[in-house]
Amino acid sequence: MKRKKPLILVTNDDGITAPGIKALVDVAKNFGDVCVIAPDKPQSGMGHAITVHSGIMVIPQDFPGAMAAFGCTGTPADCVKLGKYHLLKEKPDICLSGINHGANMSLNVIYSGTMSAALEGALEGIPSIGISHCNNNREVSIEASKKVAKILLETFLHNKPDNNLCLNVNVPDIPFSEIKGLKFCRQGKGNWKEFYEEHKEENGAELLWLSGKFENFEKRSTDTDLWALENNYVSVVPIHADMTHYEELEKVKKWEVKW
Amino acid sequence: MKRKKPLILVTNDDGITAPGIKALVDVAKNFGDVCVIAPDKPQSGMGHAITVHSGIMVIPQDFPGAMAAFGCTGTPADCVKLGKYHLLKEKPDICLSGINHGANMSLNVIYSGTMSAALEGALEGIPSIGISHCNNNREVSIEASKKVAKILLETFLHNKPDNNLCLNVNVPDIPFSEIKGLKFCRQGKGNWKEFYEEHKEENGAELLWLSGKFENFEKRSTDTDLWALENNYVSVVPIHADMTHYEELEKVKKWEVKW
Repeated sequence: MKRKKPLILVTNDDGITAPGIKALVDVAKNFGDVCVIAPDKPQSGMGHAITVHSGIMVIPQDFPGAMAAFGCTGTPADCVKLGKYHLLKEKPDICLSGINHGANMSLNVIYSGTMSAALEGALEGIPSIGISHCNNNREVSIEASKKVAKILLETFLHNKPDNNLCLNVNVPDIPFSEIKGLKFCRQGKGNWKEFYEEHKEENGAELLWLSGKFENFEKRSTDTDLWALENNYVSVVPIHADMTHYEELEKVKKWEVKW
Repeated sequence: MKRKKPLILVTNDDGITAPGIKALVDVAKNFGDVCVIAPDKPQSGMGHAITVHSGIMVIPQDFPGAMAAFGCTGTPADCVKLGKYHLLKEKPDICLSGINHGANMSLNVIYSGTMSAALEGALEGIPSIGISHCNNNREVSIEASKKVAKILLETFLHNKPDNNLCLNVNVPDIPFSEIKGLKFCRQGKGNWKEFYEEHKEENGAELLWLSGKFENFEKRSTDTDLWALENNYVSVVPIHADMTHYEELEKVKKWEVKW
């Protein structure tokens, strides 16, 4: 009996027309049958949003390299749920999200539509990879990330990942020849120093635009994704959805509670 | 010198007109000066979404019990960033999110706008509590959750929490007299068994509505929020934004990579 090709679900948060998802399908089609389910418009910064207050419109489309493709009005996480529970006849073997135009390292994982789709895959028992190119300009070449995606898929398939594995992969914005390799690491601590650009409107209203600069809070640590990227490695962080802060749990358990 | 009252930022994800946020302000005003910054419409299921593709419109409003109040077109996480970086003259001492109409235990924390606002507070160095009443019907009495909020605020202030502490609090939908107390616990493992209600549209399009039933994956564990709620306790889970899956990290570090 011929071995079945893996079924690969590809999604993203930049929308179904973004160059990044085309590049990812281009890579994925060499490893299995590809199905694309992606938002019909950019959804960056959507975090793990899902659509609960309305229906989601799904429209079949043509997508070169894909066996089937659907654009939808939902979020990246919705796309994976739609695939698992409705649009696909069988459970995908792998879920890929990206290639995102912009970095998703460190704290950015919680704001990231790209990573919410990948995590949603892992939550549904589909080993997943979210891959981001560290430059949010869509005009910039993502050839390096394409090559990294190929290496990762080979590595992934070869090493038979756990069903709940979700990898957050970030590729530095440098030529592939200058990348030193993959670094498996933890999520570094950091945050945005932010400000709002202000436009006064009528009636006391204000229109405010978010802007900011990311800060690494642990510059001396060498085991973080932030270190890996600064040192020309691809960062690979396994993530999960257990947000329990176990150290704080031990502290608060000792609290005096006046019921 | 008179001791300054705490500055308490109150937000939610059900929108500034929801009964839950009014109830929370009603409690909070007894503990300090309250400022409300909340979405102008329901934002349930928004996860940790932030507004990056457009500006956010902010409109000052009257809100009984609050020193100042603003409705905005942003997400719950946006509300906290707006407070910290723009609308408030000083950093709040506490951030409260809720009272949410609906449960946010277990995996639901990643989809929850309520909890993203609270977590955003903790990320900005403001100890935070997100509080949810386990019934998503807005008509249901949330008196029990109000009483729990008061106890929690007293406990919180008395025990001087760490600046990055974020508590995910869920209150069972039963009369206060039947609640057995607070249970500090970890996030239980579970997920939604989902399906889509389907409406065929023209041109091959489909309109799909998400529906589902939550499943507890570890029914025998007694240290989870799921157990606490089923046994008539208020569940209190400290959460953080480090999503690194440390066990998987040790596994993938051993992977063979063909670069």
